[in-house]
Amino acid sequence: MEPAQILGPILSVIDLLGIAVFAASGALQAAQRRQTLVTFAFFALITGTGGGTVRDLLIGAPVFWVVDSRYPLICLVTALLVWMTPRAWWKDRALDWFDAIGLAAYAVYGAAKALSAGVAPLPAAMMGVVTACMGGIIRDVLAGQPSIILRPELYVTAAVLAAALFVLLVLAGMAVPVAAILAALAGFLLRALAIVRGLALPVYRG
Amino acid sequence: MEPAQILGPILSVIDLLGIAVFAASGALQAAQRRQTLVTFAFFALITGTGGGTVRDLLIGAPVFWVVDSRYPLICLVTALLVWMTPRAWWKDRALDWFDAIGLAAYAVYGAAKALSAGVAPLPAAMMGVVTACMGGIIRDVLAGQPSIILRPELYVTAAVLAAALFVLLVLAGMAVPVAAILAALAGFLLRALAIVRGLALPVYRG
Amino acid sequence: MEPAQILGPILSVIDLLGIAVFAASGALQAAQRRQTLVTFAFFALITGTGGGTVRDLLIGAPVFWVVDSRYPLICLVTALLVWMTPRAWWKDRALDWFDAIGLAAYAVYGAAKALSAGVAPLPAAMMGVVTACMGGIIRDVLAGQPSIILRPELYVTAAVLAAALFVLLVLAGMAVPVAAILAALAGFLLRALAIVRGLALPVYRG
Repeated sequence: MEPAQILGPILSVIDLLGIAVFAASGALQAAQRRQTLVTFAFFALITGTGGGTVRDLLIGAPVFWVVDSRYPLICLVTALLVWMTPRAWWKDRALDWFDAIGLAAYAVYGAAKALSAGVAPLPAAMMGVVTACMGGIIRDVLAGQPSIILRPELYVTAAVLAAALFVLLVLAGMAVPVAAILAALAGFLLRALAIVRGLALPVYRG
Repeated sequence: MEPAQILGPILSVIDLLGIAVFAASGALQAAQRRQTLVTFAFFALITGTGGGTVRDLLIGAPVFWVVDSRYPLICLVTALLVWMTPRAWWKDRALDWFDAIGLAAYAVYGAAKALSAGVAPLPAAMMGVVTACMGGIIRDVLAGQPSIILRPELYVTAAVLAAALFVLLVLAGMAVPVAAILAALAGFLLRALAIVRGLALPVYRG
Repeated sequence: MEPAQILGPILSVIDLLGIAVFAASGALQAAQRRQTLVTFAFFALITGTGGGTVRDLLIGAPVFWVVDSRYPLICLVTALLVWMTPRAWWKDRALDWFDAIGLAAYAVYGAAKALSAGVAPLPAAMMGVVTACMGGIIRDVLAGQPSIILRPELYVTAAVLAAALFVLLVLAGMAVPVAAILAALAGFLLRALAIVRGLALPVYRG
């Protein structure tokens, strides 16, 4: 079963929207550092496609943006848009919310793609987390910033919740579209609590 | 010939032990930085599986932990153990010794897997080094630490010795299990000298 | 159509020369930091083969240096040469020029290899940029240096020009060897202007 078929055309829209949001967060990283248009494009591509690229390599699937030029095109157009518009248009808060949608949707999408490629439940859930988070991690490493994985805010955890819940609900026999919507909502709500209330996991006290 | 068949069931135990040791070193990196349980899990997974993942991608084999859920499970359980136990239990020295066993065993295992996949001797030896060292390198990059490859201590060199010696002995016609034990011992001893006596390679003086 | 066949034996020489130049830049990074011979070899290998490795993984081709031992051998010999010779022999400027040749040739070579593997024009041009730049980016990340992608100088842009021009000329029907020479020349000249005159792209002003 193809993930596109599983999750229907709605996800196809969320997929392209999600990549645009992640690409924008990469381009804004370049904007903050007053970089050139080429660097904008590079960071948009890395952040937008990085997570899905690592997932596809790990499960042995053809890398999605190498076989479908719409994906890199969306990243390049997004980079150009960020470049041509005033910085003030791109409110950090607005982006956080778009990013939360992308995070939740991609965690579910990555897990669904892995399941449909025959990957076992535990690594399939991990593929969801990889899809949602790895683009941002690569972006941070290349920008020389503390990786998102080291920041206190609750971010990767939301992806873990969405991906793990989706896999568990599917294993429990729930219809895939329902499981996808419930799991993505749960991940999004957890991330929303982190954005609004600064919710964070407890840290190690040794 | 399968590496498991080559090296027998003993290596299968060392393999699972080795991944636990590397996973523990990742989780302890997270502990040092007072991170959350999710970050513990993330670093345990990256450090435990990173080297073998890069090796499998390079030689075109299915990624070992995507097709065998025991590996990520061991990493997650290790992360949980480190999280739940007092820091004082995890002596740096004790870990160094476990890590030295993992380093030597993985250098040989990686080279053996590459040879049995039909890779030529030079790249096969390099796959041993990749298997042994790349997890730690990715861990350091994500943690924003100077990579192990830049530290003066003799670490990568021990992996080079174990992997290269194994390939040379097999080429020279030695029985594979004997070559594996000799090569792993040589790599372990070299690393032991570095731990005990601070042995290091000479640096470039230009 | 094989890239080797497309571009003829001249490119085969440029290919091996290019890898030596990139390997030298990696070894010199290690020399600057007064590292050991093992670190020299590691950086020479990563920098020399990194870009082509990522390209081959992305397009699903066998990784070039795993199936042809001449490539890692060249990197190791280069590392040894840099190690054994006085630092003064390796003028930064001379290396910049060799690197510019490698950059232009690899951008075209990577795009040609991707096109001949059936990759669509846009991702094929991106594969040229990846081949030319990714080795240096990985080298910088491992060395804890600001990535080349963040430095003001015009570098990635020259690779973009060479790769995109090559793909456009081939699409327009030009004979592949002519397109390759023209595109590589254009990329080299742009990089030359950056070296000689400090030419740079405008940065974002928000």
